[in-house]
Amino acid sequence: MTTIPGPLLSATVTILALLFYFFSAMRVGNLRGRLGIKAPATVGHETFERAYRVQLNTLEQLGLFLPLLWIDTFFPIRLGWLAPLLGLIWVAGRVVYSRAYMNDPEKRLIGAASSGLVNAALFVLAILGVARAWMQVGF
Amino acid sequence: MTTIPGPLLSATVTILALLFYFFSAMRVGNLRGRLGIKAPATVGHETFERAYRVQLNTLEQLGLFLPLLWIDTFFPIRLGWLAPLLGLIWVAGRVVYSRAYMNDPEKRLIGAASSGLVNAALFVLAILGVARAWMQVGF
Amino acid sequence: MTTIPGPLLSATVTILALLFYFFSAMRVGNLRGRLGIKAPATVGHETFERAYRVQLNTLEQLGLFLPLLWIDTFFPIRLGWLAPLLGLIWVAGRVVYSRAYMNDPEKRLIGAASSGLVNAALFVLAILGVARAWMQVGF
Repeated sequence: MTTIPGPLLSATVTILALLFYFFSAMRVGNLRGRLGIKAPATVGHETFERAYRVQLNTLEQLGLFLPLLWIDTFFPIRLGWLAPLLGLIWVAGRVVYSRAYMNDPEKRLIGAASSGLVNAALFVLAILGVARAWMQVGF
Repeated sequence: MTTIPGPLLSATVTILALLFYFFSAMRVGNLRGRLGIKAPATVGHETFERAYRVQLNTLEQLGLFLPLLWIDTFFPIRLGWLAPLLGLIWVAGRVVYSRAYMNDPEKRLIGAASSGLVNAALFVLAILGVARAWMQVGF
Repeated sequence: MTTIPGPLLSATVTILALLFYFFSAMRVGNLRGRLGIKAPATVGHETFERAYRVQLNTLEQLGLFLPLLWIDTFFPIRLGWLAPLLGLIWVAGRVVYSRAYMNDPEKRLIGAASSGLVNAALFVLAILGVARAWMQVGF
């Protein structure tokens, strides 16, 4: 696995994450039509509201996930495959989160925690990678 | 057009997309003051709610559009200008969407569909470009 | 400062901006539990609503800030350290914004204006940098 370029691994994981997000956004649009939620409202039916929160929470998480994944990719520490591997766990955690949330919002915590923990780990890798780059320019 | 670097084309389209988004966010701030919507509320006047949904929906779409545009740029297939050209259509679709939505939310669908279809096309290009890169490293 | 690579400065500022955003998102999750706001609701207690708007407004601003910061980094004008320096002001402005907003939403304007002005300045730098790149390829 070490001979595959880091950016290729991260691009692959990025596409998977965006496919999940695209699906969650399409579902909101479909439910809006099916359940008769007239724009600009974003409330009015429990199922719609759950789907919309799944989408928006995923966007909120993507705002951390994608920048961190790519900082990890371009400022790598020794284990260059670790960030993309964590990214796969992030995507899997999102699928778990979405299925649980649509069923019962109170059961969303395991899925939410797993992508939150991945973001925290990607943060640590980003700080280590950027700190190493600072040391290399002489600080 | 083939001699212009892909990143330059994509950076130009990115600036145009962000200018539209910046305008849509400024409008929300102005309407908040003018219509007396006290923070933290995001509802209370139909015009404000429309403008806010245009901004937020644009942010939701940007979360797909920008990462896909740049994956397409750095993992190009033969037609390197195709992704930035699609990006111009995305921006035009957003302008149509915003004008229609502010006038009557039920008329937003053509504009919404055009930027949705562009995102789908950018997805196809991203998958093809990344698949080609995997084949080049020997898979 | 001119011998430190621009991408390293921008990566450092990106991490600081994301740390602030991560904190603002964690706070929303904690307040949701503490104040008993059941998902998928995003309203129901003034303190929660303030914290949620701080998070979401920061995400709305990140959607401009991060792409502009990195266009400025890869299409620099002469003063390559200017964009990361503006980025530090953006982060400081967010801290001011958050503290004021949680205390009294009507006092959020100075913090909001400072990150808005930084985004406007990053826009100018992006347009100048990309325009220069167009001239260099012969336009």
